[in-house]
Amino acid sequence: MDERALGIFDSGVGGLTVAKAIRQRLPHEDLIYLGDTARVPYGNKSKETVIRYAREDCQFLLDRGVKAIVVACNTASAFALEVLQEELEVPLIGVIQPGVSAALQTTRSQKVGIIGTAGTIGSGAYQKRIKEKCPDIELITEATPLLVPLIEENWLEEEATRLVLLRYLRPFLEVKVDTLVLACTHYPLLKPVLQKVVGDEVSLVDSASTCALSVENLLREKKIEKGNEEEGKTQINLTDLPAHFKEMAVRFLDQKIEDISIVSLG
Amino acid sequence: MDERALGIFDSGVGGLTVAKAIRQRLPHEDLIYLGDTARVPYGNKSKETVIRYAREDCQFLLDRGVKAIVVACNTASAFALEVLQEELEVPLIGVIQPGVSAALQTTRSQKVGIIGTAGTIGSGAYQKRIKEKCPDIELITEATPLLVPLIEENWLEEEATRLVLLRYLRPFLEVKVDTLVLACTHYPLLKPVLQKVVGDEVSLVDSASTCALSVENLLREKKIEKGNEEEGKTQINLTDLPAHFKEMAVRFLDQKIEDISIVSLG
Repeated sequence: MDERALGIFDSGVGGLTVAKAIRQRLPHEDLIYLGDTARVPYGNKSKETVIRYAREDCQFLLDRGVKAIVVACNTASAFALEVLQEELEVPLIGVIQPGVSAALQTTRSQKVGIIGTAGTIGSGAYQKRIKEKCPDIELITEATPLLVPLIEENWLEEEATRLVLLRYLRPFLEVKVDTLVLACTHYPLLKPVLQKVVGDEVSLVDSASTCALSVENLLREKKIEKGNEEEGKTQINLTDLPAHFKEMAVRFLDQKIEDISIVSLG
Repeated sequence: MDERALGIFDSGVGGLTVAKAIRQRLPHEDLIYLGDTARVPYGNKSKETVIRYAREDCQFLLDRGVKAIVVACNTASAFALEVLQEELEVPLIGVIQPGVSAALQTTRSQKVGIIGTAGTIGSGAYQKRIKEKCPDIELITEATPLLVPLIEENWLEEEATRLVLLRYLRPFLEVKVDTLVLACTHYPLLKPVLQKVVGDEVSLVDSASTCALSVENLLREKKIEKGNEEEGKTQINLTDLPAHFKEMAVRFLDQKIEDISIVSLG
């Protein structure tokens, strides 16, 4: 048993979809969330810069005494998770391994598509892990940098959004993937229109829910679940609070946001 | 006469459209450009954070001995220019005042539209300056955060881009503005498709060329033009070098980029 909070970080609001999934699966755990909104996004930054930022994000959470850290950002998981796991003693869990496992369990045709930021796709992190476990799988990937701004603009039902998705996903439809991995924690909000564009025969795998399951397993395995049965608190820390942030964040977390602190890193 | 270089900064590559316009107008001046690519974009950050970043950007340029600083970013000009002008002794010039002057000279119908980042539009900087000079003008504004990612994705001819513009600009077409201010240094790259969407009767005002003229006037007025007639050098500094950055930057500067340094601020 361990009463300390669980730390979660992301470059911005996207990781709140992971926080939401963890909250649903582990309602008693206290969560300390850090969104690095002063430097968002990470998806268009270099590996070196993302590692530096992720290190500072972890230090912030460690200073608040968390018992484990969830890297709720695909780009940070792709570039920095292994480095951080070597450097830190606290257990760290990313969103990529859970997404990879879910994709491999889901596909029947062995044709899998992956979409994410330029950083995540360019890193090859998903591709490498999938190929290691299943060398014969046919993979098709695409960096889709327009999706985060479309989601943040809340254009979830627009014809323009459908056209952007069609343009990005045409090669996936030609190859006839049966599984599409949403390798960015923003993308779950696009699921309805994505499903329409790819058709019902394609399964969408998002890392938020699969990551929450991995977190539950980790806490159980390390015997660091919270002991008491009180409802867990969610405390949100941001490095910047731009106008209209709260309205946007509520769509990601899907609950009212009360406890926000603005913090400095480093 | 003053042989020192002219400093220019932006959150990323957008300011290179301003650097290009200055290079064309003032071919002998040496330019030191800083793109804060490790923290790009500024358009979705708060006023306080943008001021802090802009202050660090100026300090970097001052440490390199520049004779004047061009704030080649609309968001930084909107939030930070006045603060910096009070704090610093070096002459500073932003992109907003030149854009405002150009818009007022251009409009005949006194109906002017402005598009820019959420930060620039939300700051009211253009609106305030235009209303001060011309209280009767009819202004219509829209934050258009999808345009920067579309431009960086190089989707300049796509149907999706046209649809996004139509969605954003429909109110401008209904009001029948005769002048549209492109209040973001990325937007000049979208001019061809923008002109098609708004029609030939609408004049597009971009701040890059008008800012270059203001810079020329400033140097002359302060008597700090470069004395010798050698071709000026352009030195580019970035706080991060993500993959494929150079290909993108070349489209903005419209010339080969050779001299790039990766630097840290603060």
